[in-house]
Amino acid sequence: MACSKYEYVKQYELDDRLLPGCWIVVRLDGKGFTKCAGAAAAEVSLPFVRACRFCDMHKFEKPNDERALRLMDEAAMAVMQEYQDIRLAFGESDEYSFVFAKDCQLYGRRASKLVSLVTSCFTGTYVRRWVEHFPDTPLAATPMFDARAVLYPSDQTLRDYLSWRQADTHVNNLYNTCFWALVKSGKTTTEAHAQLRGTLSDYKNELLFSEFGLNYSTLPERFRKGSVVVRQRVTHVKTTADGRTKEKERLEPCVLHCDIIRDAFWKERPHLLA
Amino acid sequence: MACSKYEYVKQYELDDRLLPGCWIVVRLDGKGFTKCAGAAAAEVSLPFVRACRFCDMHKFEKPNDERALRLMDEAAMAVMQEYQDIRLAFGESDEYSFVFAKDCQLYGRRASKLVSLVTSCFTGTYVRRWVEHFPDTPLAATPMFDARAVLYPSDQTLRDYLSWRQADTHVNNLYNTCFWALVKSGKTTTEAHAQLRGTLSDYKNELLFSEFGLNYSTLPERFRKGSVVVRQRVTHVKTTADGRTKEKERLEPCVLHCDIIRDAFWKERPHLLA
Amino acid sequence: MACSKYEYVKQYELDDRLLPGCWIVVRLDGKGFTKCAGAAAAEVSLPFVRACRFCDMHKFEKPNDERALRLMDEAAMAVMQEYQDIRLAFGESDEYSFVFAKDCQLYGRRASKLVSLVTSCFTGTYVRRWVEHFPDTPLAATPMFDARAVLYPSDQTLRDYLSWRQADTHVNNLYNTCFWALVKSGKTTTEAHAQLRGTLSDYKNELLFSEFGLNYSTLPERFRKGSVVVRQRVTHVKTTADGRTKEKERLEPCVLHCDIIRDAFWKERPHLLA
Amino acid sequence: MACSKYEYVKQYELDDRLLPGCWIVVRLDGKGFTKCAGAAAAEVSLPFVRACRFCDMHKFEKPNDERALRLMDEAAMAVMQEYQDIRLAFGESDEYSFVFAKDCQLYGRRASKLVSLVTSCFTGTYVRRWVEHFPDTPLAATPMFDARAVLYPSDQTLRDYLSWRQADTHVNNLYNTCFWALVKSGKTTTEAHAQLRGTLSDYKNELLFSEFGLNYSTLPERFRKGSVVVRQRVTHVKTTADGRTKEKERLEPCVLHCDIIRDAFWKERPHLLA
Repeated sequence: MACSKYEYVKQYELDDRLLPGCWIVVRLDGKGFTKCAGAAAAEVSLPFVRACRFCDMHKFEKPNDERALRLMDEAAMAVMQEYQDIRLAFGESDEYSFVFAKDCQLYGRRASKLVSLVTSCFTGTYVRRWVEHFPDTPLAATPMFDARAVLYPSDQTLRDYLSWRQADTHVNNLYNTCFWALVKSGKTTTEAHAQLRGTLSDYKNELLFSEFGLNYSTLPERFRKGSVVVRQRVTHVKTTADGRTKEKERLEPCVLHCDIIRDAFWKERPHLLA
Repeated sequence: MACSKYEYVKQYELDDRLLPGCWIVVRLDGKGFTKCAGAAAAEVSLPFVRACRFCDMHKFEKPNDERALRLMDEAAMAVMQEYQDIRLAFGESDEYSFVFAKDCQLYGRRASKLVSLVTSCFTGTYVRRWVEHFPDTPLAATPMFDARAVLYPSDQTLRDYLSWRQADTHVNNLYNTCFWALVKSGKTTTEAHAQLRGTLSDYKNELLFSEFGLNYSTLPERFRKGSVVVRQRVTHVKTTADGRTKEKERLEPCVLHCDIIRDAFWKERPHLLA
Repeated sequence: MACSKYEYVKQYELDDRLLPGCWIVVRLDGKGFTKCAGAAAAEVSLPFVRACRFCDMHKFEKPNDERALRLMDEAAMAVMQEYQDIRLAFGESDEYSFVFAKDCQLYGRRASKLVSLVTSCFTGTYVRRWVEHFPDTPLAATPMFDARAVLYPSDQTLRDYLSWRQADTHVNNLYNTCFWALVKSGKTTTEAHAQLRGTLSDYKNELLFSEFGLNYSTLPERFRKGSVVVRQRVTHVKTTADGRTKEKERLEPCVLHCDIIRDAFWKERPHLLA
Repeated sequence: MACSKYEYVKQYELDDRLLPGCWIVVRLDGKGFTKCAGAAAAEVSLPFVRACRFCDMHKFEKPNDERALRLMDEAAMAVMQEYQDIRLAFGESDEYSFVFAKDCQLYGRRASKLVSLVTSCFTGTYVRRWVEHFPDTPLAATPMFDARAVLYPSDQTLRDYLSWRQADTHVNNLYNTCFWALVKSGKTTTEAHAQLRGTLSDYKNELLFSEFGLNYSTLPERFRKGSVVVRQRVTHVKTTADGRTKEKERLEPCVLHCDIIRDAFWKERPHLLA
């Protein structure tokens, strides 16, 4: 029963090394969190807002459940702590993007290694930490995330990718905020969709303000901008045996909720694209 | 802040569809479960037995921890319940292989979808179910698995792949059984390795029998053959309100510990390769 | 001016090895031989018959130019003489498919090596041998062929691929034979297309017979079945210095015009798929 | 004999689109021009100089055959005339690299299309134009070129690629010039290799000067720097029917022999990397 006779099958494992010199983005998406395979497929051009499997099952608040978003952030920080090659991460709703440095050599840049390990670390942390964020809601199903690796050859294309995700956060959140306000005010989901279909931002802002007394720009930045995870110096204060305090600085993943579309964010952090 | 300006970045997501008409094997491996990056790398041709990070941390029994193996099996069954396209799975130690049907169209056969979702489902289940298998050992770290997709174009190459994994199970288990018997009897790990290096199966079988009174072939098949998960008819008996019992049959993933190298297993289950 | 400083750029050459255990088909297509990028694109579901750049320029006979077909065959034989790993080839019109053995290890099965060298050998031979087939028509432009490598994991899929090409030969040839008969009889190309659009084989056979006195099945097999190149034993007779003759047998690529859809061809040549 | 039954085989043609936003380099290499598979393989770290198949067969002059180099350049210009997306090309010995613009959309950036068509156009032109460059040497074999597509994500990596090729031109040419001077002076090829092995540029320059009275820097730039093909404005003067002359400017591929490693070349032609 020697292995050697069968070892030729290893040749079938082909190389899936990613092109050097490109930013690697690994993007995770929750499977069946907020989207319904059936109904939603019919209106793919609309932001998806229908309550659905995983969100529904665990009674996520609408349009945003802060506990769920914080759990996503925590899982993302765990991934960044595991992989120092990740420069930054951006998350919204049930998705998260991790940006590996252009010159990253982790696992020889093999796509399946990067995709699977990020997914595994993220999912594992999400399940482990669930109870801290949802102490009263037992986990009723295994959350699942898919992931893919995408290459961006230039700083500009990387920034445009991140801008795309943050613009998407805004568009979805504005829509969802309106949608759920309408639904909570008594409309059916069909009526709410019908009222919002094809409307512009201005209309939606005005709707929120005039009908629901809501100034959209005062909503939490976490909802409007998503979560940006970067490494920052964090000071830890330790009290020694003799009662003195000692400060220690460490680079740690921190969650911000700020604009990453304009230049300011990048100018303040030149090391991110260096 | 319209998305449209940035949407061109979607073009950077390339197609990673797997060749049709081939068996797809998604193989997961525990990261840092039983192998030490450092020391083990030096002796890659030997089965790895050094206690290490995840196993060590959670005091897995040596050479096999039945609780850990059962937890792996449970995670594998969850994956098979999620994906009906999986024909069978084979697991040993901290690895598991899932075999998707040749004509499987799941997610358009996109490699990263299959790899990431299998990994996510497996890891998520592993963490969720941990407490049932290790009620007295809190999970001290997030278990991580990497995964890859490999294509096998013919039934023969698929069977040879599975034979390779099961032969590997046997070779590793025989070595590890000897190794830990020697260590438990007082040898250092270095001495144990030295004594076993380059020896044949006969020597190891004889060593176990004469020195430790152990007949290798009487060890549990789970350890010697690994775990095979196939779908089998399972009868569920339900008692109705009026006290009568009702039987219902369902196809369910079941774990077997049997030979899959010889033809018998396949002849009894012609549907597996059909 | 040492190279070493720049040699890192070699890392950007990624592996493009083709999956082992699959038939490799390299298919070449003439660029701008019979198809017009413009007009033809509008009616992609129709066989393309419009006289066009390369064919037009060199006054290829319609619907089939035997000289051009023989030149294609000669180029294909040169490719097969260069690469013993090619089991057989099939050609029609301005395309040719080369079938490399499943276990072929040529150039480590690297796709770009196989695709480029087949293309180079074919094109080079086509140009070199032009004058022999078109002694009165100087080559007025460089003929160009594109190529791709496609994998077929089973004998059945390979045979279906070849059947697809031979069925295509028949469909195109029947259409083109009718089309050019109509055009030569005085119809415009538009009228000819209109008359044939959507008609079945029976109609076309009947049209040829009743209007043009042509029994389609008596047309040369080269036109109706395309060209199949296989290696066959060929006897060479040599006269020695003393006047005696010596026979020598050699395996050489030979062109056949026969059915490869039905089993007979394959049963007579079991080595082709062995 | 409908095609439809077999058309499913088209699904086996997978997408091989190259990542957008990267420079595409298609590099061709002569097969069996200057290298011998056998002997040369043993001394891979040395520049290859052994006379060999194609060169030998056609009595190429050593160390450089200007006719052969001019034929290569002509084939390269034909490729550039065919494909306007090519920004520049660089050639030396029996190899040529073609640089497609970062935003090139030709054939949807499909690797096999680009690789095969460049190869086909190059080979076809090489054979067609042979007689003009070698009027007294009939083509005795079909020249063959392999090719591959490599992506460079940044201007710097592209320039480093081209610098790598030009530095290689210099290193090979200096070695070969010395080698053939020694051989022509009566040394065996083995002795010549032995004398040059491991020596630095200075030694080789000195050797040429002191023993053969040759100032390396006065050799033709074509040999020392290779060929760079760029598009330049060329003025064509036409005499009209009434005897007047008319000038017309056109962008045409032109061959230069100049340094492309330093910045000057690029600063004078900012459009190349724009």
